[in-house]
Amino acid sequence: MGAGGATRGGIDLGGTKIQTVVVDDANDPLGDARRPTPQSGGPADVAAAMAEAMRDAAAGAGLETGALAGVGVGSPGGVDERAGTVRGAKNLPGWEGTYALGPELAEALGTRVRIGNDVDVATDAEFRLGVGTEYDSLLGVFWGTGVGGGLVLGGKPWVGQGSAGEFGHMVIERGGAHCPCGRRGCIEAYAGRAAMEAKARHEHEEKGRDTDLFKLMRKHDRPKLTSGIWERAVKQGDKLAIHLIDRAVDALGTGIASALNLLDLEAVVIGGGMGVRFGEPYADRIREAMMPHLFSDQRPPPIRVAALGDLGGAIGAALLVEG
Amino acid sequence: MGAGGATRGGIDLGGTKIQTVVVDDANDPLGDARRPTPQSGGPADVAAAMAEAMRDAAAGAGLETGALAGVGVGSPGGVDERAGTVRGAKNLPGWEGTYALGPELAEALGTRVRIGNDVDVATDAEFRLGVGTEYDSLLGVFWGTGVGGGLVLGGKPWVGQGSAGEFGHMVIERGGAHCPCGRRGCIEAYAGRAAMEAKARHEHEEKGRDTDLFKLMRKHDRPKLTSGIWERAVKQGDKLAIHLIDRAVDALGTGIASALNLLDLEAVVIGGGMGVRFGEPYADRIREAMMPHLFSDQRPPPIRVAALGDLGGAIGAALLVEG
Repeated sequence: MGAGGATRGGIDLGGTKIQTVVVDDANDPLGDARRPTPQSGGPADVAAAMAEAMRDAAAGAGLETGALAGVGVGSPGGVDERAGTVRGAKNLPGWEGTYALGPELAEALGTRVRIGNDVDVATDAEFRLGVGTEYDSLLGVFWGTGVGGGLVLGGKPWVGQGSAGEFGHMVIERGGAHCPCGRRGCIEAYAGRAAMEAKARHEHEEKGRDTDLFKLMRKHDRPKLTSGIWERAVKQGDKLAIHLIDRAVDALGTGIASALNLLDLEAVVIGGGMGVRFGEPYADRIREAMMPHLFSDQRPPPIRVAALGDLGGAIGAALLVEG
Repeated sequence: MGAGGATRGGIDLGGTKIQTVVVDDANDPLGDARRPTPQSGGPADVAAAMAEAMRDAAAGAGLETGALAGVGVGSPGGVDERAGTVRGAKNLPGWEGTYALGPELAEALGTRVRIGNDVDVATDAEFRLGVGTEYDSLLGVFWGTGVGGGLVLGGKPWVGQGSAGEFGHMVIERGGAHCPCGRRGCIEAYAGRAAMEAKARHEHEEKGRDTDLFKLMRKHDRPKLTSGIWERAVKQGDKLAIHLIDRAVDALGTGIASALNLLDLEAVVIGGGMGVRFGEPYADRIREAMMPHLFSDQRPPPIRVAALGDLGGAIGAALLVEG
């Protein structure tokens, strides 16, 4: 293998896990690694965990990180691509301020680093390499800790003035559920895993509703309700888990219909930890939840599951340092 | 004056009125006319009224319609530009099917006719000639009988696969108010003048709520609650009218925030019969209703009132036959 000029790294920084990948010049994975995102400490701790995970993926490809042509990062929060900084990443510990993640990682990894928005790079990956290649316009819905959105319009990413794609904060219910963003009735208030966990905890601890969600979490030694825990609970018939997943599906379907009514896109791609974990059967259910709200319902666009799966965000990040 | 090659006609076909204009090669109005849209009969009656209104505008400019280089039409419903047909225009009498409006008008007016979507042409007019000229991306919200939406993205109209811009059918309240489209909780269910009239009638006739809305309608010999009637009622402190307008403002603000969260646009333009009639003070109120739901609220985009006013749709229609 060796240090090819086009061998690159990609890091997908999520609220729950850090996923890294090394890809060749055809964007095929040569090695990958993942580790949990630190849940305490601050940005420096997160950056250190990212560097270690990137080293692991490079080792898996038989390389040192310094031999990579570059490393791309898909990050939540406010990304300044030129400065390489990330501001106000709410799902990450102690990251209220602005942190020079790019320079920090470049130093630690011995190669150039470029930072982009996590959802934008994941959408771009699906559009260029995944399930979206046959479409000219699409909405990427990233159903995970939060609910992110990415847009491709007329064959190009649409970022608006830099902050487009806040699909998760479209309002589907005025005065509705509290959202981690501080507002009410957003899609993410019903479908984001963090909001779902808070709701489950409230129902269980305050209202005494029966559920195995937290037992499963402890049994599998998870710091929070991961997508895997939700899936297990649903599979074993946990009523609260099923109810909250149904509620999330309905919120996603309603929001997707609203977005399609406005934009009339060719396709929707569902990704993110929950989206990939729950897969096709739930994409079909989201479609069913969308239909009653879809204005042009004679030809509903397909709702596809992200083809690059868990690696999509990291591969998309690696596209940032292509060429 | 005389029959200049670039002297064109435009017709804005609304659910309440037909507005026509004749413009010169700089798109400045030379004459205009309006008449009420027939509330009974069928498409042929509407087409006849359109032709008469177009003749009136031409006469105002000292011309016969046959001397116009062409006439553009902004129409509701499903427009097939090539065939010149309009299908399923729900706010027009007896127009469930497909009617060859273009050929019919071409025959009646003795010039070529091109038909476009009413909201798209009105958005294009504001973008090219009105309040939107300084922006590269905008949402046009046409608050009238229904609530229409038009998009300009990256300097170009965005129509999706042909049906984009159904802003009025974005969902702001799952299971909420009944919308004339048959769905529930759409923006139009709260803010469309037809839905507002149905709600006012229900509150007045079924629930015995006091209002002068219908008295004013009869006094001014209007077939329905026009924008002017709503304005009068609000000005004289009619509580039901004020409540329903507040409800519409809140729905519009919420929906605009949702659209901006998704698209991060530079500006919003409010047009339509209600939008133009209620003007700047209500654009400010819509902005206030938007703020609590806006994700990137550090730099809220301006909400401007359509500069071309009542003539915007007709001038935009005339742009269809430019050059």
